[in-house]
Amino acid sequence: MGNLNTLFSPDRVAVIGATESEGSVGRAIMENLQSGFTGEILPVNPNTEEVFGLSAYDSVLDAPDVDLAVVVVPPSIVIDAIEEAGEAGITDVVVITAGFGESGSEGASREQQLKTIAEEYDMNLVGPNCLGIISTPVGMNATFSPQSALEGSISFMSQSGAFITAVLDWASDRNLGFENVVSVGNKAVLDEGDFIRHWGDDPDTDVILGYLEDIDDGRAFIDAAREVTNDTPIVVVKSGRTEAGASAAASHTGAIAGSERAYEAGLEQAGVIRAESVQELFDYAAILEDQPLPDGDEIAIVTNAGGPGVMSTDAVGDSGLSMATFADDTLGRLEETMPEAANIFNPVDVLGDAPTERYSDALDVVLEDPNVGSVIVVACPTAVMDFEDLAEVIVEKQQEYETPIAASLMGGDSARDAEEILDDVGVPSYFDPARGVKSLDALREYSEVKQAEYSQPTAFDVDRERAREILERTKERETNKLGVEAMDLLDAYGIPTPTGEIVSDKQAAVEAAETIEGNVVMKIVSPDILHKSDIGGVEVNVPVEEVASTYEDLISRARNYQPDATILGVQVQEMLDLDSGTETIVGMNRDPQFGPLVMFGLGGIFVEVLEDATFRVAPVSESEATEMLDEIDSAPLLRGARGRDPVDEAAIVETIQRLSQLVTDFPAILELDINPLVAAPDGVSAVDIRATIDHEEL
Amino acid sequence: MGNLNTLFSPDRVAVIGATESEGSVGRAIMENLQSGFTGEILPVNPNTEEVFGLSAYDSVLDAPDVDLAVVVVPPSIVIDAIEEAGEAGITDVVVITAGFGESGSEGASREQQLKTIAEEYDMNLVGPNCLGIISTPVGMNATFSPQSALEGSISFMSQSGAFITAVLDWASDRNLGFENVVSVGNKAVLDEGDFIRHWGDDPDTDVILGYLEDIDDGRAFIDAAREVTNDTPIVVVKSGRTEAGASAAASHTGAIAGSERAYEAGLEQAGVIRAESVQELFDYAAILEDQPLPDGDEIAIVTNAGGPGVMSTDAVGDSGLSMATFADDTLGRLEETMPEAANIFNPVDVLGDAPTERYSDALDVVLEDPNVGSVIVVACPTAVMDFEDLAEVIVEKQQEYETPIAASLMGGDSARDAEEILDDVGVPSYFDPARGVKSLDALREYSEVKQAEYSQPTAFDVDRERAREILERTKERETNKLGVEAMDLLDAYGIPTPTGEIVSDKQAAVEAAETIEGNVVMKIVSPDILHKSDIGGVEVNVPVEEVASTYEDLISRARNYQPDATILGVQVQEMLDLDSGTETIVGMNRDPQFGPLVMFGLGGIFVEVLEDATFRVAPVSESEATEMLDEIDSAPLLRGARGRDPVDEAAIVETIQRLSQLVTDFPAILELDINPLVAAPDGVSAVDIRATIDHEEL
Repeated sequence: MGNLNTLFSPDRVAVIGATESEGSVGRAIMENLQSGFTGEILPVNPNTEEVFGLSAYDSVLDAPDVDLAVVVVPPSIVIDAIEEAGEAGITDVVVITAGFGESGSEGASREQQLKTIAEEYDMNLVGPNCLGIISTPVGMNATFSPQSALEGSISFMSQSGAFITAVLDWASDRNLGFENVVSVGNKAVLDEGDFIRHWGDDPDTDVILGYLEDIDDGRAFIDAAREVTNDTPIVVVKSGRTEAGASAAASHTGAIAGSERAYEAGLEQAGVIRAESVQELFDYAAILEDQPLPDGDEIAIVTNAGGPGVMSTDAVGDSGLSMATFADDTLGRLEETMPEAANIFNPVDVLGDAPTERYSDALDVVLEDPNVGSVIVVACPTAVMDFEDLAEVIVEKQQEYETPIAASLMGGDSARDAEEILDDVGVPSYFDPARGVKSLDALREYSEVKQAEYSQPTAFDVDRERAREILERTKERETNKLGVEAMDLLDAYGIPTPTGEIVSDKQAAVEAAETIEGNVVMKIVSPDILHKSDIGGVEVNVPVEEVASTYEDLISRARNYQPDATILGVQVQEMLDLDSGTETIVGMNRDPQFGPLVMFGLGGIFVEVLEDATFRVAPVSESEATEMLDEIDSAPLLRGARGRDPVDEAAIVETIQRLSQLVTDFPAILELDINPLVAAPDGVSAVDIRATIDHEEL
Repeated sequence: MGNLNTLFSPDRVAVIGATESEGSVGRAIMENLQSGFTGEILPVNPNTEEVFGLSAYDSVLDAPDVDLAVVVVPPSIVIDAIEEAGEAGITDVVVITAGFGESGSEGASREQQLKTIAEEYDMNLVGPNCLGIISTPVGMNATFSPQSALEGSISFMSQSGAFITAVLDWASDRNLGFENVVSVGNKAVLDEGDFIRHWGDDPDTDVILGYLEDIDDGRAFIDAAREVTNDTPIVVVKSGRTEAGASAAASHTGAIAGSERAYEAGLEQAGVIRAESVQELFDYAAILEDQPLPDGDEIAIVTNAGGPGVMSTDAVGDSGLSMATFADDTLGRLEETMPEAANIFNPVDVLGDAPTERYSDALDVVLEDPNVGSVIVVACPTAVMDFEDLAEVIVEKQQEYETPIAASLMGGDSARDAEEILDDVGVPSYFDPARGVKSLDALREYSEVKQAEYSQPTAFDVDRERAREILERTKERETNKLGVEAMDLLDAYGIPTPTGEIVSDKQAAVEAAETIEGNVVMKIVSPDILHKSDIGGVEVNVPVEEVASTYEDLISRARNYQPDATILGVQVQEMLDLDSGTETIVGMNRDPQFGPLVMFGLGGIFVEVLEDATFRVAPVSESEATEMLDEIDSAPLLRGARGRDPVDEAAIVETIQRLSQLVTDFPAILELDINPLVAAPDGVSAVDIRATIDHEEL
């Protein structure tokens, strides 16, 4: 796959299936292209001489020097058309036609053929089953949308073509322009990651927006997005967020839904800003496109009325922003310049009789405060309020101080002209101050994404060969559950397990117990006995003098229970003092889109009843593992709440990373749970492990 | 205080402080009144002959038959003016003037005088420090707002005058009318509860809206709102919701902030629908004003595009609504009437080529399904889409089926006329389907409020006299903490406590122990020794043969520790098996606005670390107490999670109610915590109690 420059800036576009036929997609595409495309349009249609005054070619093979082919022929002849395009050396193709993967097995096999040809000719192929693409710098609307796009610096991709038509219609009477718009369709070849990468390199795209229903390759998406978000913000609405939505999406797209927690973790790890609704998507786009980033998360509110000041403060409380604490100098200057009755603390109340000049004075002082990262200006109609004047002042200040500002001009018609003044420079202005605060919060979020350093996952020095051998040894078995060798597997990757060994006679059992301080735990080891406790196959708190007899008891119980069981011996293990430690769980399962998803939480009721758990897509870096500990509600229990000793958090963080490395190295590990991982003040120990293996992957 | 009919429908309004002086409030009020008031205006101003062509009176005493006096004179002469109004027999007064409780001690004492006079003359007094009031049925704008209100059936009160000016300006170019608007100001006399009660009785008010910063008397508000919400919905934005907002509100209004959890509990108990933002407040008002209530919480989505269908489904997932499961008959009829490729399951996808008729057919089928309580119609622009036609169809269906409908016509200018058609009948139409779903969810919430039966709190048969004696006995003490008598207090109110008694010699101790099954707990009883465990004053697990010697040990330890301590004896108590029960906490503290706030949660880490607790304003009814058990995240632990035996929930519910009755009966109990209340399968027992008493209240 080459770069996408030609796709978005072709000189010559062939429309395979161009026609004048009333109500057809081929006609709509021709009309849209002819309405503004700066290059040349080459209709391809063997059944006609010309289309809208342009000579038609019988085959794309006859059309000279085509850069981009747009395909609208019926599904049964798409493959031939693409094959010809390939032969003609065309590397950029948009397949509008539906009737592929989304519609039954015949369609699916057709889509597979499409992929094969695209691969053969190294094609950048958009679709199939899509609305098309728009590229405003070359005036190209290669879609069948009734409405085109204004020029702008937003590039927008959508998995729903209908949603694009809605957005274009809606944006047409707003000051919202686009550079590129892409209907990704079935994503047979080009997917979200490809477009993100292209737009990340494109100096004319300031903001990338996406409406996504599923992501095929989550890890590739994360990698692409991470590279890009450092320079260009990505805002995404991920549809199918809720259980109800996910099941609607599954029936709509036919895609196997990844879990919402995988998307949540993955998009956050990718540095993608997530919008919950369409309104948020475009509110965030507008402010990210035009305004500078805030220096810090502290916001100042300047208002001419107390009540709306409190409302705005509530909105700050709901957001990731915090109320700025003014420097003494700021307070002194406000005291000098404001009337006595004014509130000089944040939210600053310049009072109901404030003319524009008083707002201007207050803004100068507040914007010079080094603590203030962003500002929202709130204004109610009063006898002296002139919204337009105030808008001019806001624009001036925003430009002078390079600090992001939002406005809430709390009026209707009387605020309309002022809002346009603000809109022209990208200062959001909504009646509801909460919406402005949310927009500023999106800027803050992006500013944090930009500052985040994505450390590489640590590569610990592990015994990968030993782990492979342990896994391979299980291939002969009928069960796909790991048995006692799971302990060895963790050991190979440096995850602490209780001291102990597996012995096969009572003398060895006693010797093993003698090397362990205190009483021991003894467990029967047999791949055939799954629920050891139930058959009396586990004895705890065994003093060394009883080890020999306990060994015999365990063996005979196992024989009685299941005479044909293979008994590998008895595990003699150090007994951990669970009371002095806290039980945690570190686990992993595989998400269909994002791959290994690592989980952390507290053991017992916390994960199982309270669902207090946190997730990351592996591989997990040290900083990500550290965040995981911070994110759970029960974190205080690791940190000395209620008189406990704080546990060794670094050891948990390292265990999460080592587990991440293990499951990344071995895709054959389908699931793995360390439950509990006992965390004590001086380290951790993996007391019990369950793992499921896919023998096919070994 | 009489009824408020005259306040909102006066025939003759005196303006005390009327003037033509440029930029004055007195002038603005006169202009606003003269712009439409259907009654007579009587200016009062001793310094002029006439105001805007009307003869001015020297004093309100000279003005004949005044129904309502609006006061705009300077603060120093307000009291005299009100006194005169009283003498003149005027019972309805609006005090616009500021400079009262909100501004220092002089203002506060002035406000006190105002209250006294109002009480003397039994006045309905609005304000002081307010914008005024509007009553559109009589064309009265007695405010100094630059904008008046359109007629409508919403009545709106606001603690922020500026917010009223903003809303009026904003509403002026929308189809949003008001019956009454009230700026409540300092609420010296009339408060939220009074207006709610009036509007509840007023057949012309369909929806009551409030912007509140604090509620002075929470319990009175709950009682007033409960009566009203059965007929008239109340929607409120409570400002100062967040910690940041509450501190801004406190500095703005000077009010002692009640806790957000008290507001949250109180407003919910009152049946008030809470809006989180200004946008929600008016979105909810609009739909409540015009649309019928849904029959059930199941919603159907009808869309012409899959993606927006999924977005809408996500919005349903975020709400209290659920996706309707269609009856078989519905599915059969949809299969018949829709094209084969259409999705007949919810969300129904009528496909991108759907003309209006297909929407109409689908809506008929869906609206006849008995499971469907409400519907949202989603439409993207397509070649065959005519938004206006679709809007007409939606209006028709809504009227035919009496089922609430929202729309999301996903266009810009092209949807404008259609939106007006919908707006005229109160069908909300927003670009973002999530906003329409939220509005329908507010209807559902109100429909549940209407159906809720507010059962009276149970009056248990308790020994109130004994409780009073126990409390009064503590009056002599220096400490305001209850000691061992707290157990007796609970006992007097029928809350189970461990079996046992207080004895003052060792023989009695042995006899007490012999009546108790198993070993006992023994505790020193002394009002002077607070931390009994620390001085060895508690012994657990004492077998009966050691009771006598333990008695002596406890007494001597106490004497050694504090020779001058009053020792009342030793408590001999049954020992509860904590392992077989679950520790819960039932507590109470007093909120400055709402009074006794009862809390429930699980003991140990759950309340203290995880903040998993729930609150209700007392008195708490049985259904409310039952809800409390359902609301905590850790509820599964009471119900058999992880192999525990389910506890006796009814006993917890009863304990909550009995505690509620106790703290309602005795305002002297400032705080009370039963921690733990051990809940077992066969009942509960209050093992430890802490209480703080206000001796002044006894």
